[in-house]
Amino acid sequence: MSDPLRHHGGNLAAARARYGDGPWLDLSTGINPVPWPVPVDLDVDLGPLPDPSLLADLETAAAAHFGLVPEQVCAIPGSEMGLRLLGQLLGGSAYHRVPGYRTHGAAFADSLPLSADGPVSGDAALLLANPNNPCGTLRDRAALEAMLAERTAAGGWLIVDEAFADAHPEASIAPLVNDTRRLIVFRSFGKFFGLAGLRLGFVLAPRLILARYRALLGDWPIDASALAIGTRAYRDRAWIEATRTALSARASTFDRLLETHGLLPGGKSPLFRLASHPDAAAIFERLAQAHILVRPFDYAPRWLRFGVPADAAALDRVDRALRHG
Amino acid sequence: MSDPLRHHGGNLAAARARYGDGPWLDLSTGINPVPWPVPVDLDVDLGPLPDPSLLADLETAAAAHFGLVPEQVCAIPGSEMGLRLLGQLLGGSAYHRVPGYRTHGAAFADSLPLSADGPVSGDAALLLANPNNPCGTLRDRAALEAMLAERTAAGGWLIVDEAFADAHPEASIAPLVNDTRRLIVFRSFGKFFGLAGLRLGFVLAPRLILARYRALLGDWPIDASALAIGTRAYRDRAWIEATRTALSARASTFDRLLETHGLLPGGKSPLFRLASHPDAAAIFERLAQAHILVRPFDYAPRWLRFGVPADAAALDRVDRALRHG
Repeated sequence: MSDPLRHHGGNLAAARARYGDGPWLDLSTGINPVPWPVPVDLDVDLGPLPDPSLLADLETAAAAHFGLVPEQVCAIPGSEMGLRLLGQLLGGSAYHRVPGYRTHGAAFADSLPLSADGPVSGDAALLLANPNNPCGTLRDRAALEAMLAERTAAGGWLIVDEAFADAHPEASIAPLVNDTRRLIVFRSFGKFFGLAGLRLGFVLAPRLILARYRALLGDWPIDASALAIGTRAYRDRAWIEATRTALSARASTFDRLLETHGLLPGGKSPLFRLASHPDAAAIFERLAQAHILVRPFDYAPRWLRFGVPADAAALDRVDRALRHG
Repeated sequence: MSDPLRHHGGNLAAARARYGDGPWLDLSTGINPVPWPVPVDLDVDLGPLPDPSLLADLETAAAAHFGLVPEQVCAIPGSEMGLRLLGQLLGGSAYHRVPGYRTHGAAFADSLPLSADGPVSGDAALLLANPNNPCGTLRDRAALEAMLAERTAAGGWLIVDEAFADAHPEASIAPLVNDTRRLIVFRSFGKFFGLAGLRLGFVLAPRLILARYRALLGDWPIDASALAIGTRAYRDRAWIEATRTALSARASTFDRLLETHGLLPGGKSPLFRLASHPDAAAIFERLAQAHILVRPFDYAPRWLRFGVPADAAALDRVDRALRHG
């Protein structure tokens, strides 16, 4: 990794070292900047090992949110780790889409990049994100079902990284996971709920696969705070519905701002926008000088990914930085 | 697992279900009941992905505590998970001692139980805990160095689980880890520091092994709270020294109580005591009726492992429960 800022988002320390300290606005990830409000009186006992019943409660609450039974759901300390472990557990080779999430290429020893929608051959796994990251392309469930049928017929697997799917329940293929389908889905807690510092994600898969995860992760895979907060947050249906609406409204407002500055935003995720511009490198620099971090890409120098700002003050700060170039 | 109470310690929900709700005294684990005092004003931002620099800070602070350079230290979400992943990463077969920690038998696909100190053959790994769990046997560094020399000559590995070693810095073999030795050491944060709800442990190993862990665990293996609390706690040398003294004093006091009741305590760990008694099953029941949970063993019906109580009130409660049998 030559430049940490071009490797993953969220590397604020590297940005501070290069552009100076101060109150940065981090738009380099797709994490909701308006998190689920953790109750101030939330009582988490960090002393004992988390009781196994708390893990079962979390998986039950999360499964209901995914539209699935708890038997097909296993909590993991972050969906990124879950993806990496899958390469060990499933073996074999996997096609992953380029552009896509960088970890997808790291997860499988035999990794087969797949540009656009080229054909997948043999019994390999096909790994894709929906919505995709960084471009935000969203496939509907019917398209994913067709892919699943094709991979099943070939003896492969369809693996869908739904890390950003909470805003699009109608597109999620999670409810189709069962013991007879060759389908594995990953979900992330931290992005939609805005609490990525809690390492919490889920793998949804046939029970044979989940048993392999549990054998690797052991009896206490999840931090006590993540157990308590995750269980409550997934049950907070009012907040979830309100957040879907708010994210969509914020993304529309942000689109208009980006367009004003000649940045044409793409993608369907209300958590981030990918803009393409011939002067992307200069715009990145201008924003960084104003202590606003966005996500550039080593493999696509015209691209910038923007997390959607939280509020009018953050929008105004981006507006001013883009204006005074 | 037929009986969850005989599988691992800490299963308080199963105990409540069987013996009733109320204020339980959990002595079923070896977790320090007087934890490192988390500052009430500790400011942890759970929103963003933890900055990679925070992980480096934690590993530096922990390495200093282990008497080692940070380059040989990798943080993991609990030493139990680290042990399980090692089976995947190292491959091959491993001898583990019986009696020992149950996870040791689960970590390697080819697991070779080793009673007492029988000889290890071939180039297998030898996995042992120091001090051992549940018996509390402590080996000195010279004994471990001899084992390391023997395993190195045979082309094997020595793997030492030092989950309970913080009370015995002089016996730790951690400072000997480097890139040329066939030595891997596990450390746990939660036991000595009394914060097992934070999933935090460390693997100390040649960098080639650590690189494999990092490839599996990804860029954000540790929760933001664990990063903040772990870094501060490992730097709190005054608390660490005071706690070593206090644990030792508490264990001596507890030994006298156990002896009063005909329970002969064994082992060198001041975090737990293993007692052997012909009526162990009846004593377990009597304590459980008084809502005191200790750790019985399916494979050794005369054994009970007691976590060392925190204070005079807890000691008195144990005393009364043992007296009124």
